[in-house]
Amino acid sequence: MRHQSVEVFRVSCSGPGDLSGVKALVASGRLVVADIVAVMGKTEGNGCVNDHTREFASVAWCHWLAAALGCSPEEAGRRVALVMSGGTEGVLSPHFTVFTRRWINGPAPAGPKRLVIGTAQTRDFAPAELGRAAQVDATAKAVREAMAQAGIASADDVHFVQVKCPLLTSTAVQRSVDLGTEPVTRDTYESMAYSRGASALGVAVGLRELTRDAVTDEVILRDFSLYSARASASAGIELDHNVVIVLGEAAGAASSYRIAHTEMADAIDGKAVQALLAGFSEPARLVNLLAKAEASHDGRVRGQRHTMLNDSDISATRHARAAVGGVLASVAGHTALYVSGGAEHQGPAGGGPVAAIFHLGDPA
Amino acid sequence: MRHQSVEVFRVSCSGPGDLSGVKALVASGRLVVADIVAVMGKTEGNGCVNDHTREFASVAWCHWLAAALGCSPEEAGRRVALVMSGGTEGVLSPHFTVFTRRWINGPAPAGPKRLVIGTAQTRDFAPAELGRAAQVDATAKAVREAMAQAGIASADDVHFVQVKCPLLTSTAVQRSVDLGTEPVTRDTYESMAYSRGASALGVAVGLRELTRDAVTDEVILRDFSLYSARASASAGIELDHNVVIVLGEAAGAASSYRIAHTEMADAIDGKAVQALLAGFSEPARLVNLLAKAEASHDGRVRGQRHTMLNDSDISATRHARAAVGGVLASVAGHTALYVSGGAEHQGPAGGGPVAAIFHLGDPA
Amino acid sequence: MRHQSVEVFRVSCSGPGDLSGVKALVASGRLVVADIVAVMGKTEGNGCVNDHTREFASVAWCHWLAAALGCSPEEAGRRVALVMSGGTEGVLSPHFTVFTRRWINGPAPAGPKRLVIGTAQTRDFAPAELGRAAQVDATAKAVREAMAQAGIASADDVHFVQVKCPLLTSTAVQRSVDLGTEPVTRDTYESMAYSRGASALGVAVGLRELTRDAVTDEVILRDFSLYSARASASAGIELDHNVVIVLGEAAGAASSYRIAHTEMADAIDGKAVQALLAGFSEPARLVNLLAKAEASHDGRVRGQRHTMLNDSDISATRHARAAVGGVLASVAGHTALYVSGGAEHQGPAGGGPVAAIFHLGDPA
Amino acid sequence: MRHQSVEVFRVSCSGPGDLSGVKALVASGRLVVADIVAVMGKTEGNGCVNDHTREFASVAWCHWLAAALGCSPEEAGRRVALVMSGGTEGVLSPHFTVFTRRWINGPAPAGPKRLVIGTAQTRDFAPAELGRAAQVDATAKAVREAMAQAGIASADDVHFVQVKCPLLTSTAVQRSVDLGTEPVTRDTYESMAYSRGASALGVAVGLRELTRDAVTDEVILRDFSLYSARASASAGIELDHNVVIVLGEAAGAASSYRIAHTEMADAIDGKAVQALLAGFSEPARLVNLLAKAEASHDGRVRGQRHTMLNDSDISATRHARAAVGGVLASVAGHTALYVSGGAEHQGPAGGGPVAAIFHLGDPA
Repeated sequence: MRHQSVEVFRVSCSGPGDLSGVKALVASGRLVVADIVAVMGKTEGNGCVNDHTREFASVAWCHWLAAALGCSPEEAGRRVALVMSGGTEGVLSPHFTVFTRRWINGPAPAGPKRLVIGTAQTRDFAPAELGRAAQVDATAKAVREAMAQAGIASADDVHFVQVKCPLLTSTAVQRSVDLGTEPVTRDTYESMAYSRGASALGVAVGLRELTRDAVTDEVILRDFSLYSARASASAGIELDHNVVIVLGEAAGAASSYRIAHTEMADAIDGKAVQALLAGFSEPARLVNLLAKAEASHDGRVRGQRHTMLNDSDISATRHARAAVGGVLASVAGHTALYVSGGAEHQGPAGGGPVAAIFHLGDPA
Repeated sequence: MRHQSVEVFRVSCSGPGDLSGVKALVASGRLVVADIVAVMGKTEGNGCVNDHTREFASVAWCHWLAAALGCSPEEAGRRVALVMSGGTEGVLSPHFTVFTRRWINGPAPAGPKRLVIGTAQTRDFAPAELGRAAQVDATAKAVREAMAQAGIASADDVHFVQVKCPLLTSTAVQRSVDLGTEPVTRDTYESMAYSRGASALGVAVGLRELTRDAVTDEVILRDFSLYSARASASAGIELDHNVVIVLGEAAGAASSYRIAHTEMADAIDGKAVQALLAGFSEPARLVNLLAKAEASHDGRVRGQRHTMLNDSDISATRHARAAVGGVLASVAGHTALYVSGGAEHQGPAGGGPVAAIFHLGDPA
Repeated sequence: MRHQSVEVFRVSCSGPGDLSGVKALVASGRLVVADIVAVMGKTEGNGCVNDHTREFASVAWCHWLAAALGCSPEEAGRRVALVMSGGTEGVLSPHFTVFTRRWINGPAPAGPKRLVIGTAQTRDFAPAELGRAAQVDATAKAVREAMAQAGIASADDVHFVQVKCPLLTSTAVQRSVDLGTEPVTRDTYESMAYSRGASALGVAVGLRELTRDAVTDEVILRDFSLYSARASASAGIELDHNVVIVLGEAAGAASSYRIAHTEMADAIDGKAVQALLAGFSEPARLVNLLAKAEASHDGRVRGQRHTMLNDSDISATRHARAAVGGVLASVAGHTALYVSGGAEHQGPAGGGPVAAIFHLGDPA
Repeated sequence: MRHQSVEVFRVSCSGPGDLSGVKALVASGRLVVADIVAVMGKTEGNGCVNDHTREFASVAWCHWLAAALGCSPEEAGRRVALVMSGGTEGVLSPHFTVFTRRWINGPAPAGPKRLVIGTAQTRDFAPAELGRAAQVDATAKAVREAMAQAGIASADDVHFVQVKCPLLTSTAVQRSVDLGTEPVTRDTYESMAYSRGASALGVAVGLRELTRDAVTDEVILRDFSLYSARASASAGIELDHNVVIVLGEAAGAASSYRIAHTEMADAIDGKAVQALLAGFSEPARLVNLLAKAEASHDGRVRGQRHTMLNDSDISATRHARAAVGGVLASVAGHTALYVSGGAEHQGPAGGGPVAAIFHLGDPA
């Protein structure tokens, strides 16, 4: 019987195109290129519309993977799910989290569930489909495909679903308007929120946290009581479809990693994350936190006014990453954390989902 | 015998010029205008050179105080120490912390030391004096005057010294250069760091944390092993001299408030603040935290690279406030905190001083 | 018979609250405070949602006018139309353009038409009225009132209509949503565009450039072929209603000033402005240019891509002011120009209206 | 006898990594990859320290050139002088200006001088060498090497010298400080100015506009009366040495292009550029303008205050590019112009050099 062994490497970088740390891992024999199935990167751009560091990192990865795998850069980009999230505001440190998976034949390990991973991609979207039902449905379908690939039968065993989704540039807006298809918004920065929101609701449908009927065009970015507790979506200029990474646990996996998740009730809910870490009873080292951050839409945190949504100099997602990055780093004790901005329909309004990946038997 | 009773009010505002909350306190009889000795405000500007929200708030306070006290706005500004610190990045919430002091005749209260306050002002500085020994000396002198006014005999009883200090605009730089007096820097943003640094070292000298001999022009912004553990300096465009507020404790004070302080070792040292709060054994309500934040000059937090000093879109002080604001809010449980950016010679390199003001007998 | 004499003073300032230049004019006897009817200021904020320099300047003016006129600051703000436009990007220089009007009895001057001015204000708007027909109608009505006050019978004699209009803060958005009245947008920055757009279309209706029927909610920010060639609208946080200033010419006015206008076809159409100035045949000194600037919504200037609409670090209105400010300054030869950002329905798409005020008989 | 034929292609792009326009030129047979000697790109980053679009574009070019030339990306970067200048503020449009050179044997063409090009590179600099004499000298030497390669005997025939030079990141600053070698500044943004200034003075020495004796460490960024009228320097994070491109004219060249230059006296001196274009008497099409822009260090343009140097939200170089880009585009009639920010010692203080490249016999 075939079962999987997943490994997770958190690798620092000196810039969006710096893969020297990854190359060193390969040279040391610890990382095998052909095993890489997904990369979640934090790059030092603004995380908004004109963040080219995401594309730069993706291009660098594709070129390097292509040379190592003997394929074209485009093919490398199809084989490996590359999700780059821009924005390392405040203390956050640019890095890549690299996931490998190896299929092992033989009797499945006994014992508790272990980390597994699956990936999938949707078709390309037309500009007018972003932020609407078409994106919800395609995402839900991709989530189920990725779960199947990961060998996860029950949605309860899914702890984090990362989606990389497109945004609208002014060129795309204009093209869509010229075609007579009005996009959900003409504002490029706002299009990121719509794309994330529809993707997150797609995850919620895929994981059966919400019924498909509950998710109409009208609720997207309107009814924030609807959300997935495990979705994380990042929008970027570098793709036209959704990429989905499902992280969960399955019995019989041979990984020496585990994953757990919680919800931050608001942007300063460090206590939830302390409880998540304290609640993990096995001897283990925290590899990384994966989290979403947002400026609460009601303009308040614990009843007090914040200024993030009125700031025309710094985008609200940048503020949110900086603040939540501080909160999480003070709990985790390190700063190379995956904190992504814009948590529309991802966790409760004003808060967000957080997952923790642990390496077992390594309590350092 | 005359002894003082200090009260502290933390008042939210809807904008830099909004004093409606303060007026409501006056209307309710809880706040007496003539008792106000100092105001420490957080306003929603960028906290950098072109932050006019600080001046706007100061002007609004001066006009209102003048009308209430029957004096000119200028005179009001001399009577009350107004320190406005710009920047409410991330979750931070704009607010004013208002300090009142009333002198009471009669037997001094027995019991432990209680909160006292003193203020002082230096002379105006020439542009070429900023960031240099002249500013150090004048600040040290003002600290001792404010201590005397506060009735604090030992520097050990000082827990926080807030300084408001000038910066160099491009106009001031040019004027100084034309006069043949080269300013310490021609970069306006960097002048804020020099002014804060010299002011902080002045506090260190005033509190005898450092000897005067140890502080030369050459160490300012160079040797960050020299610092005051209790200094907090904010630079602003709205004044040409230093304003000093000394917060400490004295026996015989009638205040129902206390103050304590600690040092954050780095920007994510939430544990130090948790210990500060946990270490306060009397039943009390936390009124506010007063803290400084900075991007560590070595470009690292706990060994990992940060990007704050290389960011030409967002000033490093803004990043630092956002991150440290998140850390402190997650500990304090509220977001209307006084977190000021740029901690040069204020607390250890990369970290900063934190003071906590408590209202006794009010454990809410 | 009563006729008016209008004067126009362009006064530099060292900051949003600096009225020293204005005070010097009063001290010299050239400016009489009681004659001031309108002020159009350029302040050095970001011109966007969180630009508090506009309010700061308005407050400073109100306090100063109040002291001089012997009324309350609020009353001063009602008597004088204060329009502050934030943003002096690039070479633009902060300044105030002060309009005075004196009514003179006696025979009307013969000769050509001369500069006249009229002002009016609308009622306060509910958040959900902004960017919609209610704002259009109220603005059109105010334009006609201001024309009547100015003594302009034919809309052909109107050369510039300045409108100051509100924006939506996140607090206002939330309040409106809570009331069940969905605002035209929940994005605070975008609300500025809607408010300007509806106001401009209101001017177009008021000046009969468009019929009222042509202006529905659906065309606002959608059909940019509809515009006023003479409207200039600036949104700001500091008011809840529209202020309207009509500038035009009338026979019988005693002013030694004239005004003319043109349209820039796009953001680099300096030739139109050169033609406007060259076409003014009387000996005269250019007092100021009043202009609107925008990033063309199709993402192109003369067929080539611009990046203003995709920039999440600098708002598009800031880019547009900087570029158009350069174009106009190279033609006018000075930089204290009134260039305001966001020209939705103000002049042709991608371009904008420009008015020139001349002082006759003063060819310096 | 061997003589050169230089061609110049201005190619639009849809992003920093988009070479589709260049590839189309190759596919059409108009551009031969092996002939490419230099590329001057305008990319849409912030043009400041953390502008990764420059490196992204360079990497994309290197990968593409490597595949076409059959060499490694590193070798491609050595063969072709790649100068990427970030920042397309305002109306500026991202594009590449591609220079090819072909050596032709046979009798040299008679007639007037024609466009020639030469390139050279300096050694790598240590961080503490930037902005100091070492950089001046190495640049001057490279200018002479590039002149020789271009076949230009007299410096009078040089019309533009483009230098790409390094900057200091916070990591480099720290490393240098740790080595006991104090860099010229610890401020990363200011290091760009120092690197540009020393490079420009190196050009001035190389072209004998200044004697070597006149250029000491003390004058760099201090005495702006010293400048090169033909130097253009851009600092970037993507290299550690200087790359030099010399553009000039030589008799006997077979190019159908010419080049001329002028100086803008200040940022709004459009008249100088109008005169440059009007003064070119042959029938020709303007291919591109190459220009430098800066915020005048005295804080004024034509005597009026500008706010660029006090703006902590937008770097001064960004303001300057936006404004000068508007001025130049209004003269040139198109927006894909090479306008680079930071003109320290490049043209007169507050102004800058401008070169125009013309294609002969193509008056479109």
